[in-house]
Amino acid sequence: MALDQYFRDNRERHLAELTDWLSIPSVSSLSEHKQDTLKGGEWIAENLRSIGMENVQIIPTPGHPVVYGDWLHAEGAPTVLVYGHYDVQPVDPLHLWETEPFKPAIRDNKIFARGATDDKGQSFMHVKAVEALLKENGSLPVNLKFLIEGEEEIGSVNLPKFVEENQDLLSSDVIVISDTGMQEKGQPAICYGLRGLAGIQIDVKGAKGDLHSGLYGGAVQNALHALVSLLDSFRDENGVIQVDRFYDKVEPLTDDEKAAYEALNFSDEALKKELEVGALFGEKGYTSLERMWTRPTLEINGMWGGFEGEGIKTVLPNEAHAKITCRLVPHQDPDEIVELLTKHVEAHTPPGVTVEVTPFDKGAPYVTPYDHPAIQAAGASYEKVYGVPTQFIRGGGSIPIVAAFDQILQKPIVLMGFGLPGENFHAPNEHFHLENFDQGLRVIADYYSTLPEILKK
Amino acid sequence: MALDQYFRDNRERHLAELTDWLSIPSVSSLSEHKQDTLKGGEWIAENLRSIGMENVQIIPTPGHPVVYGDWLHAEGAPTVLVYGHYDVQPVDPLHLWETEPFKPAIRDNKIFARGATDDKGQSFMHVKAVEALLKENGSLPVNLKFLIEGEEEIGSVNLPKFVEENQDLLSSDVIVISDTGMQEKGQPAICYGLRGLAGIQIDVKGAKGDLHSGLYGGAVQNALHALVSLLDSFRDENGVIQVDRFYDKVEPLTDDEKAAYEALNFSDEALKKELEVGALFGEKGYTSLERMWTRPTLEINGMWGGFEGEGIKTVLPNEAHAKITCRLVPHQDPDEIVELLTKHVEAHTPPGVTVEVTPFDKGAPYVTPYDHPAIQAAGASYEKVYGVPTQFIRGGGSIPIVAAFDQILQKPIVLMGFGLPGENFHAPNEHFHLENFDQGLRVIADYYSTLPEILKK
Repeated sequence: MALDQYFRDNRERHLAELTDWLSIPSVSSLSEHKQDTLKGGEWIAENLRSIGMENVQIIPTPGHPVVYGDWLHAEGAPTVLVYGHYDVQPVDPLHLWETEPFKPAIRDNKIFARGATDDKGQSFMHVKAVEALLKENGSLPVNLKFLIEGEEEIGSVNLPKFVEENQDLLSSDVIVISDTGMQEKGQPAICYGLRGLAGIQIDVKGAKGDLHSGLYGGAVQNALHALVSLLDSFRDENGVIQVDRFYDKVEPLTDDEKAAYEALNFSDEALKKELEVGALFGEKGYTSLERMWTRPTLEINGMWGGFEGEGIKTVLPNEAHAKITCRLVPHQDPDEIVELLTKHVEAHTPPGVTVEVTPFDKGAPYVTPYDHPAIQAAGASYEKVYGVPTQFIRGGGSIPIVAAFDQILQKPIVLMGFGLPGENFHAPNEHFHLENFDQGLRVIADYYSTLPEILKK
Repeated sequence: MALDQYFRDNRERHLAELTDWLSIPSVSSLSEHKQDTLKGGEWIAENLRSIGMENVQIIPTPGHPVVYGDWLHAEGAPTVLVYGHYDVQPVDPLHLWETEPFKPAIRDNKIFARGATDDKGQSFMHVKAVEALLKENGSLPVNLKFLIEGEEEIGSVNLPKFVEENQDLLSSDVIVISDTGMQEKGQPAICYGLRGLAGIQIDVKGAKGDLHSGLYGGAVQNALHALVSLLDSFRDENGVIQVDRFYDKVEPLTDDEKAAYEALNFSDEALKKELEVGALFGEKGYTSLERMWTRPTLEINGMWGGFEGEGIKTVLPNEAHAKITCRLVPHQDPDEIVELLTKHVEAHTPPGVTVEVTPFDKGAPYVTPYDHPAIQAAGASYEKVYGVPTQFIRGGGSIPIVAAFDQILQKPIVLMGFGLPGENFHAPNEHFHLENFDQGLRVIADYYSTLPEILKK
């Protein structure tokens, strides 16, 4: 109750601070924002110091630095590692933003800005929950370590090595991450599984240059036709992936899992309405939720070649390009999948062209047993604040570092998400519902407070 | 002989004049060159006047104007209509030009500039041949009409209507066009057939916007996959077009035609070397020449959608686009082909997307009996100058106005081409071999001189 009062009394200042952080364009993927990204890290480091965190450091990596800070005076109590990220996605197309991405604006009890929900807003809640506990009680119920990185939006390229080399610094009993979301307003959810990621770029090369389709058309391979034929071989007309051995390690869903998804009452009609499509599309024999959370995918993310201008140009293009990525499910190995994709390309390359394959950064899939007490306790804290039972769900996306934490640190990971569908992360008009900011602070503080009992050593 | 001397004596001035004309960037497709295009027409109108052509006019059309001029004092002699065009293709990519496209440069007895071969250089030869005949003899052996248009490179959009409405002005016994080429150096050729053109743009639309492939991948149609599946349905793995009834009106080659092509000794090895490909590709059962000249084609000229930047973006694109054009052979009707293509799209659109089809400008195919005396006489004039028998060939490209002349004016059309393969028309470093300029002047003058005997009324 005292904490609730603290959150109410300090709400305005908290939002002013968050606004300040969100104003820093810490876009990790763009070199022109390198200094801004550093500034985004320095800002949260300073805020951690200001609330009483100790040993706060900005630790260099070959890319953007990692921010660390801890408070380790809860003798005998468990240790929590909180992960978040201070970097954000690019903002283009800028003209679709109603207010500027780095001038945070509050409308309808939502805060609009790049990073509002992904992930500054959500990371910040942990910092402010800790602030409240320290201010009100003079101490924390648990030992706490913050690890806030600056490269999540570019695939956490340097973090796995950092974690590998700093296992003592990062040792903990449970890892908490708020970088995911709930399924709907007022319905708390904990994500216990994520899909992995693997992909390749395909570059097709035909003749020495673009050719005149009148002079040569009919007698020489067109790079676009070769690419189309190659790409069409990856899936059948139902979306089933035709890459040899692609599904070998995918485990069928258990009856329990199927029943659990069924109980979520997911509405295909609502999804169609949300996406504005006349029909959904996917692997036969699976529900939409199963397709999005538990089945691997192969999607063309981009493709191009030849003439894109207005009107007609009767060219026979000699180059064609495509990017494809796969979402992977547990037991699929990203390296092996890249190998299978590459073999598929080799086996399906039409005559008259050469094809080059370049792999993208990869991420392993992840699923954790959600009956672990640390995960169930998080569900209980949610329920106390939101008043309804917590859903245990899986997510279709990939947080590459989650699989790395799982493999290296081998501790339970609690994906305590406060985002909502439609909050446009990675898109224009990203925003965060402030009711989840308010309630999330209470959930987090409650969770830290109950953990010592749950994880009694 | 007197003419030969005239051409030698005036060569330097002729090339200086051509350089002047080629310096005008009369790119008909680009609105920023509208005035330049007009200037290109005015230049040749003035040149026609200067050599003694009469009734020279710059006749407005809804687009770029038509230049007309005549000399009609050869009583009792046949009338020749000479067609050419003063507009040129765009020049991008500019950085690939060794010298600037509109600063003509002579190297190795070739003149380099946009329009050098297509078609200023070739049109200009007719003007200079007429000049020589008038200067040396004080009169022409035939009545002559020049029709030089400014929209050939944008599909001659206004010319068919102009021809339709000005049949008296344009009435003639034979139409001569120099806008094609020979098969190899020193080997004159007359083209007696061209392919037609029809095409469509395909625009695929899926969900309301690009989607996150992690959140939605697997449950909703990806516009790029839909497009790939649609495009792949147009041809089989041997390049045979799968559009229903596409080949219905295509006539098989006669044994005579097959034998004539065989006699041209076309080398697949040379083509592979020219195009730098490991293998040729096309319809089984046809030679490369037959594929390029006598068989219809369907080619993707461009396609695009989703992320084209560097690296990875796990987007599920909601839009995809492609342009396809078909080269048509005699008896195929462009309007009907567009209808068949549209029906094919409708029948092969995958679920979960909508597809819009937009037809491009069209051109009919054309074949003329090459045993017509006016065509055979042109072959004889070539042979006199080049010293080897003239080849009678077909071309894979399309000159839309040729079919229109054929249908409206119904006179024999002599495609008296002086271009050479590799002269890069429509590409960077377009050039024209000056030996063909020199010999072409003699061929043209000889042809005009022999026509009265050939076409005795």
